[in-house]
Amino acid sequence: MYEGPVQDLIDELGRMPGIGPKSAQRIAFHLLKIPTPDAMRLSEAITRAKERVQFCQRCFNFSEHELCLICSSASRQDGTLCVVEESRDVVAVEKTQEFRGRYHVLQGCLNPIEGIGPEQLRVSELLGRIDGEQITEVILSTNPNIEGEATAMYLARLLGPLGVMVTRLASGLPVGGDLEYADELTLGRALEHRRAVE
Amino acid sequence: MYEGPVQDLIDELGRMPGIGPKSAQRIAFHLLKIPTPDAMRLSEAITRAKERVQFCQRCFNFSEHELCLICSSASRQDGTLCVVEESRDVVAVEKTQEFRGRYHVLQGCLNPIEGIGPEQLRVSELLGRIDGEQITEVILSTNPNIEGEATAMYLARLLGPLGVMVTRLASGLPVGGDLEYADELTLGRALEHRRAVE
Repeated sequence: MYEGPVQDLIDELGRMPGIGPKSAQRIAFHLLKIPTPDAMRLSEAITRAKERVQFCQRCFNFSEHELCLICSSASRQDGTLCVVEESRDVVAVEKTQEFRGRYHVLQGCLNPIEGIGPEQLRVSELLGRIDGEQITEVILSTNPNIEGEATAMYLARLLGPLGVMVTRLASGLPVGGDLEYADELTLGRALEHRRAVE
Repeated sequence: MYEGPVQDLIDELGRMPGIGPKSAQRIAFHLLKIPTPDAMRLSEAITRAKERVQFCQRCFNFSEHELCLICSSASRQDGTLCVVEESRDVVAVEKTQEFRGRYHVLQGCLNPIEGIGPEQLRVSELLGRIDGEQITEVILSTNPNIEGEATAMYLARLLGPLGVMVTRLASGLPVGGDLEYADELTLGRALEHRRAVE
């Protein structure tokens, strides 16, 4: 249907997450239509990001330097680690402004069906940090779905014997939500984990 | 929140049509995570498309050469022009396999609010082709929405005195919709039932 470079562009765009064939075509035609310098900014942003962004050698978040901004910051609290699956989860937690400790990015979660075991994740690096950084609390902040829960349970078993406090993000009703629209599992969990009102 | 190159990448992705901030972040993190050669293929596809793809000098569709594949094809029927707004509409009409003539891409539609008049479109080039290529029928295939209808009516008035048959895609397309999103059967039927413009 298309000539070479146009089809190539559509194909490459279509490989991105959440971009279907129609969106890929729409974006490709948009890129072809806009002035060349505008389109080249995207191309160059990809090149530059791949050249300059690496993984933080301590927490495995994305970073421009050997250590990321959070790991190298003197104003963050030592001793508490928030363990997340992906870099985007660091962003989500940071936005709450409720956490002043450090992070550890697992770069995924346990998923036996897709062949992802502890060796594919940054688990040994996490264990190494407990002693090395005198960690007193690890907050397991993996996703509240099957894989995330399994990963949290696995890590809790590994961390228990190390004498560190292990906590898990609370499950419950979303703030601002309606009881009526909550799914049974969430409402059940909220009931099970009910707290005394002071 | 992000360091320079990551934020730049998210910003540039967010400028693409249909990509919101969340999708931009998701795609950026995907690009950072995959192997560099895979990410570079997208960057290079953009560069190559911008370098090698231009507008066909006759129909103003995207083309790798001075004339596009359809304009330079000997197996297409001469004498009938299908006038569309954008290159993506050429793709949509081609998919119906109901049209064997040639195309003319206006590169937009009349939109006084956005300051797009006939001078911003390839209207004079269209008029030039009527005589030059002995066109006998012009099928106005602009979108069946307000701007597309206005553009069709405007062109019909210009083309009428030139002694060429002017037709419009049959109604049957959902009014207010986009040609791009019509299913092939509906678009094919609309093409088959095109009617003379009075």
